[in-house]
Amino acid sequence: MPGNTFGAVFRVTTAGESHGPGNVCIVDGCPPGLELSVDDLRPDLDRRRPGQSKLVTQRKEADEPQILSGVFEGRTTGTPIAILIPNADQRSRDYDDIKDKYRPGHADYTFDAKYGRRDYRGGGRSSARETNVRVAAAAIAKKLLRQAHGIEIVGYVKQIGDIVADIRSPEQVTLDQVEATPVRCPDPIAAPRMIERIEQVRQDQDSIGGVSELVAINVPAGWGEPVFDKLKADLGKAMFSLPAVLGVEYGVGFGCAQLRGSENNDIFIREGENVTTRTNRHGGMLGGISSGLPIVLRCAIKPTSSLSKPQETVTRGGEPTTIRTKGRHDPCLLPRFVPMGEAMMALVLADHMLRQRLMNG
Amino acid sequence: MPGNTFGAVFRVTTAGESHGPGNVCIVDGCPPGLELSVDDLRPDLDRRRPGQSKLVTQRKEADEPQILSGVFEGRTTGTPIAILIPNADQRSRDYDDIKDKYRPGHADYTFDAKYGRRDYRGGGRSSARETNVRVAAAAIAKKLLRQAHGIEIVGYVKQIGDIVADIRSPEQVTLDQVEATPVRCPDPIAAPRMIERIEQVRQDQDSIGGVSELVAINVPAGWGEPVFDKLKADLGKAMFSLPAVLGVEYGVGFGCAQLRGSENNDIFIREGENVTTRTNRHGGMLGGISSGLPIVLRCAIKPTSSLSKPQETVTRGGEPTTIRTKGRHDPCLLPRFVPMGEAMMALVLADHMLRQRLMNG
Amino acid sequence: MPGNTFGAVFRVTTAGESHGPGNVCIVDGCPPGLELSVDDLRPDLDRRRPGQSKLVTQRKEADEPQILSGVFEGRTTGTPIAILIPNADQRSRDYDDIKDKYRPGHADYTFDAKYGRRDYRGGGRSSARETNVRVAAAAIAKKLLRQAHGIEIVGYVKQIGDIVADIRSPEQVTLDQVEATPVRCPDPIAAPRMIERIEQVRQDQDSIGGVSELVAINVPAGWGEPVFDKLKADLGKAMFSLPAVLGVEYGVGFGCAQLRGSENNDIFIREGENVTTRTNRHGGMLGGISSGLPIVLRCAIKPTSSLSKPQETVTRGGEPTTIRTKGRHDPCLLPRFVPMGEAMMALVLADHMLRQRLMNG
Amino acid sequence: MPGNTFGAVFRVTTAGESHGPGNVCIVDGCPPGLELSVDDLRPDLDRRRPGQSKLVTQRKEADEPQILSGVFEGRTTGTPIAILIPNADQRSRDYDDIKDKYRPGHADYTFDAKYGRRDYRGGGRSSARETNVRVAAAAIAKKLLRQAHGIEIVGYVKQIGDIVADIRSPEQVTLDQVEATPVRCPDPIAAPRMIERIEQVRQDQDSIGGVSELVAINVPAGWGEPVFDKLKADLGKAMFSLPAVLGVEYGVGFGCAQLRGSENNDIFIREGENVTTRTNRHGGMLGGISSGLPIVLRCAIKPTSSLSKPQETVTRGGEPTTIRTKGRHDPCLLPRFVPMGEAMMALVLADHMLRQRLMNG
Repeated sequence: MPGNTFGAVFRVTTAGESHGPGNVCIVDGCPPGLELSVDDLRPDLDRRRPGQSKLVTQRKEADEPQILSGVFEGRTTGTPIAILIPNADQRSRDYDDIKDKYRPGHADYTFDAKYGRRDYRGGGRSSARETNVRVAAAAIAKKLLRQAHGIEIVGYVKQIGDIVADIRSPEQVTLDQVEATPVRCPDPIAAPRMIERIEQVRQDQDSIGGVSELVAINVPAGWGEPVFDKLKADLGKAMFSLPAVLGVEYGVGFGCAQLRGSENNDIFIREGENVTTRTNRHGGMLGGISSGLPIVLRCAIKPTSSLSKPQETVTRGGEPTTIRTKGRHDPCLLPRFVPMGEAMMALVLADHMLRQRLMNG
Repeated sequence: MPGNTFGAVFRVTTAGESHGPGNVCIVDGCPPGLELSVDDLRPDLDRRRPGQSKLVTQRKEADEPQILSGVFEGRTTGTPIAILIPNADQRSRDYDDIKDKYRPGHADYTFDAKYGRRDYRGGGRSSARETNVRVAAAAIAKKLLRQAHGIEIVGYVKQIGDIVADIRSPEQVTLDQVEATPVRCPDPIAAPRMIERIEQVRQDQDSIGGVSELVAINVPAGWGEPVFDKLKADLGKAMFSLPAVLGVEYGVGFGCAQLRGSENNDIFIREGENVTTRTNRHGGMLGGISSGLPIVLRCAIKPTSSLSKPQETVTRGGEPTTIRTKGRHDPCLLPRFVPMGEAMMALVLADHMLRQRLMNG
Repeated sequence: MPGNTFGAVFRVTTAGESHGPGNVCIVDGCPPGLELSVDDLRPDLDRRRPGQSKLVTQRKEADEPQILSGVFEGRTTGTPIAILIPNADQRSRDYDDIKDKYRPGHADYTFDAKYGRRDYRGGGRSSARETNVRVAAAAIAKKLLRQAHGIEIVGYVKQIGDIVADIRSPEQVTLDQVEATPVRCPDPIAAPRMIERIEQVRQDQDSIGGVSELVAINVPAGWGEPVFDKLKADLGKAMFSLPAVLGVEYGVGFGCAQLRGSENNDIFIREGENVTTRTNRHGGMLGGISSGLPIVLRCAIKPTSSLSKPQETVTRGGEPTTIRTKGRHDPCLLPRFVPMGEAMMALVLADHMLRQRLMNG
Repeated sequence: MPGNTFGAVFRVTTAGESHGPGNVCIVDGCPPGLELSVDDLRPDLDRRRPGQSKLVTQRKEADEPQILSGVFEGRTTGTPIAILIPNADQRSRDYDDIKDKYRPGHADYTFDAKYGRRDYRGGGRSSARETNVRVAAAAIAKKLLRQAHGIEIVGYVKQIGDIVADIRSPEQVTLDQVEATPVRCPDPIAAPRMIERIEQVRQDQDSIGGVSELVAINVPAGWGEPVFDKLKADLGKAMFSLPAVLGVEYGVGFGCAQLRGSENNDIFIREGENVTTRTNRHGGMLGGISSGLPIVLRCAIKPTSSLSKPQETVTRGGEPTTIRTKGRHDPCLLPRFVPMGEAMMALVLADHMLRQRLMNG
């Protein structure tokens, strides 16, 4: 069973390679009546695309989406929404290096092991370029979530190298705060240090990893399925489906290993008419089902594998060689990861929002 | 879409509550011809069940599995395998506390928010008792993987509180080493300290969290699907589908945030006829597809939420109250988590082993 | 991908063989709050089981269902409902004939071709015995449909051999009329002739085919998905998933081949506040979506393949031989098909009832 | 759960409306290494498109497919294949009639009932135009089936009105015979009579129904899943997913109602090294699994609902009115149904071909 469809009832299927004609997604399951145009898709595509700042790759990718179906007279019809983002630049470059050599940290070797062949141009299907249609699809999901429940999803950079942002109230971070700096870190003290660090590794022809934190507020209690499709399970899959993610944690996360139950448990209290908890170490989900508290998760992102400096590797035939990645790559994936992570979070939440409707009466 | 089925082509569907008649799973997609009897299911069920040692809960659960279908003359027939594990003890106890009060850290409140009602006896569907049929199903998966590729899956306790085991070569840890101590930590120095720590928290009527590491060796390169169903994504979902898991990481994991690309990239080399990497910071998957290196992941497990000491909480009606969990609970979930984590890893790998057959020819 | 699960959001997974310990189903996706007990399952199980009358097989099958999960304090909880129907009689009989010879019209040969092995006892997984858990699952679906929309599903025998019942208003046939005779034909003139015909073929050690008509009333307009999961497509799959069904048709069915558009089109009219059609040649679905008119379909059922008289065949090794089916078999499948057909119709409608909830804003 | 995806492991997802920018499909699960170009897609698209002969609609639809992904250096890569067929003519015509009036026999009313709104231009998503991408996707499936097993799928017109073709050996009909006449009936006596009949109804501003027979040869024994995903069940769903299909039958089909078991059973014999049957009343499947005999099915197709002559109907508001369908429509759907029916048959067979690989040890 192929793996290019995501979601149970709000379903996204994608296709496309880095240097083919374009990337396509089909969003199936969007309810009818939602106002929608390409203008809804552009803001997050702009946040995702290369060339926004000197912190990220300077490649030019126009990312101009076309809605091919499912919208009529400005509103969704309930039928599938196909979105095409043509690849602006399909010139055939010199890919001889990538063709014959395995780039460290990339999927070149594993694709060959899986398929026996691969579209080697710019990474082909394994390129992060494929995420542009995920971001487009998720713009629809975000709009659905906002209109139905006032849900807002905000991601930001929490850590670059050993520089950790000081974010006391994840649920209060705003998009404006995030977008205030090209590094997408809302901590005004850490942000310039992160920028400086990224500049440094770029000059060193190197790259650096980091951590992104993602928050969803106003998610009602009760979303998620108790056993395999726990909300934390589907969100975990969503995050790990993004390139370069090596870790995911919720709430107190790996820190829970050092806690006692009496320290870790969040105590239930009444707040007006509602039940809530005094603290949110649980990250907004209990038993895999949303608790009504903000959903808070963090993703660990590895340093960009493509380096301008030479690296040892082998050819397809196993001969030792060296490789330098030509072209311009992100010295740090984190700033552009933020809209990708938000996108996957939105797809999962929209899916579970609809699934919860199956529970009603 | 309900969430009680796991896997695409090796599919497990489960049902059952903690104190109902029993738990059931249907394993669909197991190829014909595999030798199978209940004896294959018992060893991991015994590792999972309560009462094995003083480190874990002293509840009595017999966990005697019955194979109801799909096996004939000692071999699988290719038709679905139903397994029933009756609940030995269904006596109606005094559940008034659980019925009316929300246990901190448990799913009582979120189940009510989702369904409007719940089977409150012993946690009902949210109880970890449900994992017994997962473990039974996974015993089949483990046997398939072993016979087809010599794959071995070994899990162990890596950390309890601030005690971290020193495991230099995860791929060399053996089941015997793990089972040598009741805490399932193969580090002979850390193990007794962990045992002591768990004893301590138990005496304190408290609990403690930890980290479990899971390793699969001999997984061929090429398993996993490139986009949404990356092997790391499906494994991530699998782990987060287990109770109490707050974090998952692969290879270098969250440590990647502090690394540069030149430090993190694993260099490809030739080893005999094969391509491999010199190091395994990537955790055995590149681009979400197995690389042939050992798959190494870690799960953060929160401290048991049930405590013998009184905790503040509210009733269903929102009134402040206190709750003490009666009965015997694990002071630390880690030792019993190990077979559960292995089980989910086995289910994912068996699924992708079969999916890879679709690529051939 | 294995084929033992049916439905998208109201999902039934089955397991079990004819002469193993029993048959099991897991019904996933039933909303919480439905009153349910084994008493709800018995009536249709009794209609399906052998030995009800001399028209059907005289085998003894108790078909006593056990609900293993998903029901608490008399109501569904929203978690999966597992139902076990033990096989009362698992004595090992003399199956040497079936073991080594291919019964004409049965799945013995094709199972061997598929799996290389088979549970040959009584047909194993290919036995119609497997439908008992479908009927049990569908009793839940019927109850959901009735309570939510007053939907009633009634099936009956329309034709046996060349005897065709005269049913002018399918939507007015009642369960009482159907159950008035053991042949389940509500036409009081045709019914005794059908009974006589079945008696005749039984005495001839032969069997006979027929047609069953199935009707669902009060299905609201708007159910079904426009493209692949048209309501007629899902119903068609459901019917063809039953043993012995060689044809399915809706409304005017194959008769449409001889009609002109001006004769066949059903004209829209207003009826009170609603739009409806003057006639129902379309069988209650237009564009694959329910129109609000009664859904009417017919299934062609082949004559029982098992015959008491000797038939030519070959052994597994290909040697010519003859076979006589021992034991008692239905001389005509139609009377017992009726509850099976109704069951599959109910499963499809319950699934699409829930799917339609996803459309609501 | 939305219904725009078909297939379990060879999966096709479609999107698009009649008068939007175009139709798109994503074919997921095609193995790597298959030679493929748009030239492979054109022949069947040409057979499906309007304007081929005076028997079918004279609308102009170019149906020029673009492959957007999944093919590199002339071969499939194993990643999803996206195909776009732009709608050549998207001019906004006068749709006021369709907008406000319910066309008899069409999905206008049921779409409104389902979604509350619809793209009324030319039928929108309910238009048969959507099948062009199914035919394109199926061209890939046909090529896979042919290369792997020499499977050939041939469909033809069996009946128009009361004119029935005399086809004694369905498995011997060739594509050339079918394409010899514009009516796609390989019986040289019936074909001209059918053509004349269609001409007649066109002049009468009317339409006519018919029956199409579809045959697949060289399908190995053993394909199909025993319970819900029987090959006959999946084929049945596939056929009923096509517009205007009101009936589907296999082998002897509805004729089985009049047969005795001793007349209907196909006797197993040895043929060389193989087991086969002397006759093929069973239509190539036993127990829902292919027997190795030709798969033979028939679909009943209703007369075109769109008529040039005025028909009574109501407006969206329920007011009585009349409607005449402007534009040119097929007076008989049968000739253009043939490639659509073949397409769905190919999609099902390719899916089960791959699923059968999961059985191999």
